[in-house]
Amino acid sequence: MTDLKNQRLLRALRRHPVDRTPVWLMRQAGRYLPEYQATRSRAGDFMTLCTTPELACEVTLQPLSRFPLDAAILFSDILTIPHAMGLGLSITDGDGPRFKHPLRSERAIRALGVPDPEKELRYVMDTIRLVRQELDRRVPLIGFAGSPWTLATYMVEGHASKDFRQVKGLAYEQPNVMHRLLEILANAVARCLNAQVAAGAEVVMIFDTWGGVLTTSGYLDFSLAYSRRVIQRLNTNNKNSAVPVILFTKGGGAWLDAMADSGCDAIGLDWTLDIGAARQRVGQHVALQGNMDPMILLASPDRIREEVKAILGSYGQGAGHIFNLGHGVLAETKPEHVEVLIQAIHELSPAYHA
Amino acid sequence: MTDLKNQRLLRALRRHPVDRTPVWLMRQAGRYLPEYQATRSRAGDFMTLCTTPELACEVTLQPLSRFPLDAAILFSDILTIPHAMGLGLSITDGDGPRFKHPLRSERAIRALGVPDPEKELRYVMDTIRLVRQELDRRVPLIGFAGSPWTLATYMVEGHASKDFRQVKGLAYEQPNVMHRLLEILANAVARCLNAQVAAGAEVVMIFDTWGGVLTTSGYLDFSLAYSRRVIQRLNTNNKNSAVPVILFTKGGGAWLDAMADSGCDAIGLDWTLDIGAARQRVGQHVALQGNMDPMILLASPDRIREEVKAILGSYGQGAGHIFNLGHGVLAETKPEHVEVLIQAIHELSPAYHA
Repeated sequence: MTDLKNQRLLRALRRHPVDRTPVWLMRQAGRYLPEYQATRSRAGDFMTLCTTPELACEVTLQPLSRFPLDAAILFSDILTIPHAMGLGLSITDGDGPRFKHPLRSERAIRALGVPDPEKELRYVMDTIRLVRQELDRRVPLIGFAGSPWTLATYMVEGHASKDFRQVKGLAYEQPNVMHRLLEILANAVARCLNAQVAAGAEVVMIFDTWGGVLTTSGYLDFSLAYSRRVIQRLNTNNKNSAVPVILFTKGGGAWLDAMADSGCDAIGLDWTLDIGAARQRVGQHVALQGNMDPMILLASPDRIREEVKAILGSYGQGAGHIFNLGHGVLAETKPEHVEVLIQAIHELSPAYHA
Repeated sequence: MTDLKNQRLLRALRRHPVDRTPVWLMRQAGRYLPEYQATRSRAGDFMTLCTTPELACEVTLQPLSRFPLDAAILFSDILTIPHAMGLGLSITDGDGPRFKHPLRSERAIRALGVPDPEKELRYVMDTIRLVRQELDRRVPLIGFAGSPWTLATYMVEGHASKDFRQVKGLAYEQPNVMHRLLEILANAVARCLNAQVAAGAEVVMIFDTWGGVLTTSGYLDFSLAYSRRVIQRLNTNNKNSAVPVILFTKGGGAWLDAMADSGCDAIGLDWTLDIGAARQRVGQHVALQGNMDPMILLASPDRIREEVKAILGSYGQGAGHIFNLGHGVLAETKPEHVEVLIQAIHELSPAYHA
C-alpha cells in the first residue's frame, strides 16, 4: 500500500483523512465508452472479453485514461465463478446472463465443487496481474465477486429473475439444501477473492445485488451470514496485509447495522438512502461508498453538480466517504457527464476535508 | 362504523384492542381464484371487468365467500384515474398496463383536467355502492387509489418501467413541470377517494408502488409530499367521520418515520422489513399492515404457519397490527394455502391480544 501514488481510496476506507473525496464508479469500464464498444466488437462476445486477459485489461484501464479516477476495478463478471463450477454461462446484451445448467436438484447442488482460481479462473488472475503491471502503482485495483446469495439466485433461477420464485422456493422449503449451496459458494467466493488479492487486488468488493429481495430474517440467514464468512476467510488469509472489503447490498437500507457488523470496512449504498442518515447510523464503524442515482448522469451538467453538492453536504465534514453511484453507469451515459461529475467532486469536496 | 358486524380492521387501524389480528390480502380478489378466472373470461378483458359494476362487485365479493376475511377491498385498478384523464389505458395479462397517450410534453401535462368521479369514474362509485349493499355491513370495504407519484410514473413512461428513465428525467430536469403534474394528480386522487368514501368505502389505501425507486429527497419531494396532500384533503372533507388511511410504499423502509408523519393511520409494509423493528420505530404513531412475502404462500402449509407465527411474534403483544402480505397474492397461489394462512392467524393471534 505504501508505494501507491494515489492512496485516497485506501485511506478513505480506513476513515483516515484525505485531501478530497476519492471517486470511482461501478461499471466505469462499460458500454457508455465508445472505446469499450470497440474492444467489445473486436472480442466478438462478452465472455470472450471476460476470458481474454489482454482485452479485459484493456477495458479495465480505459476509464483511467479518460478520467482522473481514484481506483481501477477489474473488468469481469460476478458469474465467472458459477461458470467455473460448470453451469455454462452465456451473456447476451438483450437477454442478460443465462446458465445452460441451472441448479434444479439437491443432487446437482451436492455435486458442485469449489473451483481452483489459478486453474478454472486463471484468466481473472492473469487479468489482475496484467492490470497491476500496467497501472504501475498509480491507483489501487479493486477485485470483486458476487455474494454467495446473489450467485445462488442466478444459479438456481438460471437467469436474472423478476420474482426469484425458484431460489426463494428452495430457501423457504429446503433451507438445509440452500445452506449447503451457500456454504459451497462461500468457499468458492473466499478462495477466488483470496486469489485476486494474491494476484494483486488491493481492495475487494462483494456485490450482493439480490440480498434486498429477502425478508429481514432471510437476508440475515441466507445472505449476510455467508458474506460474513467470506470476509472472515479473507481476514484470516490476509491478516498481515488486511485487505479492505466493501460490501454492497442493493435495497439493503434496513440492514445497515447488521452489515456494519459483518467485518467489512465499507458499505456500498444504493441511491435510495440518504448518505448522511446512513453515516449517523453506522459511520462510527465503517466507511460509506456511494450513492448518486445513475439516472442523474443522464440529466444536465448543472443538475449533476447540484446532486454532487447535495451528497457531499449530506455526508458532511471528515473522512470515510468514497464517492460512487448507487448502481452501475448506464450504457446511455455521455462520457462528458462523467467528466462533469468527477470535476464537481474535485472542486467541491476539498472543503469537507479542510 | 358502529353498525359494522366485524370491526376488527377499523379498531386495529385506530390501535384499539381486538380479539384477534384482523387479516385481508392485497389482490385477494384475483387470478389465483378459479371463480375470478371464470368471471374474467365472461367479461372478455380486464378493462371490461373493471368498468362493469356488476362484474367488479362479483369479483370483489368472491374471496369473502371462500375465506373468513376481515375486510373487502374494491376490485379496480390504480390506473382508472389516468384512464379517466384521457390517456387511453389497455391492460393485457402478458404485457401489463399500457397507455395509448403517455405524457411526453409540458403542454400535454398542462392540458390535463381533474376527472369528475361521479362522471368519468362513475363505474367505480357504482361498484362501491353495489358492494356495500351486498356486504350488508358484514365487513368494512376498503377503497383505494395509486399515489400521485406512482400514477405519474405510468403516465410519463406509458407502461410499467424497468428503470423509470422518462419520469426520473422529468423530475430531475424539469422539477416544476413534475410538480405541476403531481399537483393535478393529488387533486384527482383526493377527489376520487373522497367520492369513494361518499359512495361507501370505510377505509382507503394509497398504493405508492414506485416511491421506492427514488432518492430520499426525491421520495420526500415528489412522492410523500403529494400523498400527504391527498390525506389532508381526505381529512378535511371527512372530518366528522374520519376515514382511516393506509399508506403503502414498496421499498419505503428507509422512510417509515416520514410516512408515519404524513397523517396516515397505518403504514403498509413490504416483506423486506421486520415488522417488530418497524413497530419500535413508528408503532406509537400508526398501525402497521403486513407483511408476509407472497412467495411463502407457494411453500408448504407448515412453512406458511411457521411464517405467520414469526410475523405475529415479531409484532408482539397488543393492538395495531393488520395481517396482510407484503405485496399482492401471486396468480399461482393455491386457494387452500390462503385458507391455511387465515386459519393460522385465527389460531395463533388471540394470544397476542389477551
